[in-house]
Amino acid sequence: MTTAKAGPARTGTRERFLEGGTRLFRSQGFHATGVKQIAGLCGAPMGSLYHFFPGGKEQIALDGLRRSAGFYDDLMQRVFARYPDIGDAIAKWFSMAAGFLRDSGYADGCPVGTLADGIAATHDGLREAASAVMQSWERRIADRLAELGVTRPEAEELASYTVAAFEGAILLGRVHRSTAAVDRTSRVVAATLRRAVAGQPA
Amino acid sequence: MTTAKAGPARTGTRERFLEGGTRLFRSQGFHATGVKQIAGLCGAPMGSLYHFFPGGKEQIALDGLRRSAGFYDDLMQRVFARYPDIGDAIAKWFSMAAGFLRDSGYADGCPVGTLADGIAATHDGLREAASAVMQSWERRIADRLAELGVTRPEAEELASYTVAAFEGAILLGRVHRSTAAVDRTSRVVAATLRRAVAGQPA
Repeated sequence: MTTAKAGPARTGTRERFLEGGTRLFRSQGFHATGVKQIAGLCGAPMGSLYHFFPGGKEQIALDGLRRSAGFYDDLMQRVFARYPDIGDAIAKWFSMAAGFLRDSGYADGCPVGTLADGIAATHDGLREAASAVMQSWERRIADRLAELGVTRPEAEELASYTVAAFEGAILLGRVHRSTAAVDRTSRVVAATLRRAVAGQPA
Repeated sequence: MTTAKAGPARTGTRERFLEGGTRLFRSQGFHATGVKQIAGLCGAPMGSLYHFFPGGKEQIALDGLRRSAGFYDDLMQRVFARYPDIGDAIAKWFSMAAGFLRDSGYADGCPVGTLADGIAATHDGLREAASAVMQSWERRIADRLAELGVTRPEAEELASYTVAAFEGAILLGRVHRSTAAVDRTSRVVAATLRRAVAGQPA
């Protein structure tokens, strides 16, 4: 019984730990989350957690960050492909974030940003991993803006600004328990990027 | 000896706990910070901490938020009075944040935003207090924009956007250990607000 299903079952369990850990990190943060709570949420014994993640909580956070990076990279590419207008693409991205906030009762922040904010000064390996993910978002947006004719320095400036505004808007959404700040920020950022693409100075 | 200096000494100790707690919360977050660490940083016994803050860590965080609220409210008023151009005022605000980041080796985030991000889903009283502080910032900026001729709905939209961009830029600064995102975000936000004041659509 155990040997026949070992492969897929193991993959499923590992994935569940990553999902559960990411969920807890993005709502209550890294420090408030214990391995016991992750195992409990996943209905799995601690031995199983340490089997898949000998490095414990930090390894779950690190692998979770990589998993989120892949997920969001795919998502950004699909959104850019579907919404040729940069403002529409950005608005879609913000409205998805607003949806995540509402659906979680304003508990879940950005799985990269909220985690990173908690560990930036305490866990340098995790911080570096989160930094790499955010840089990849900035690069994606800069590349898209450059593709649409924005000069490279302006595209890079606007990309950092967009990710900053996005992360801050999610934070305000959680703190105010409202998507108003996300919607407001979305409109202004979308307009700013459209202007840049239209060749108008910021 | 104790009676003669009780008044001022007590005030000083209470203030030291608030300063120390705020310092730890803004760098490592609420959950990673213990009362023992706060007392240790302040060179004071635990009994003294609980004397001033019977509610422990949560009360220190709450009183610290109120203290930060007063500090930043004064600061915003002074910056707006000194820099009549809204873009200059915003740039000054971001450059102060960049300075705090650099001076702390990128450890210290926003004493309101970083604390709030950590407790948004776990401590509702603290979350509400942080929300009130951020709303007061949004109101200050909206009032200033309205004073400069921006319509009230646009002023409110831009104010939320500015606080979101500001908080997100500090987060990116900590995560990247660089002020580049703060400087970039500052330039774009300042330009956006100047345009609005000049009566140009965002």
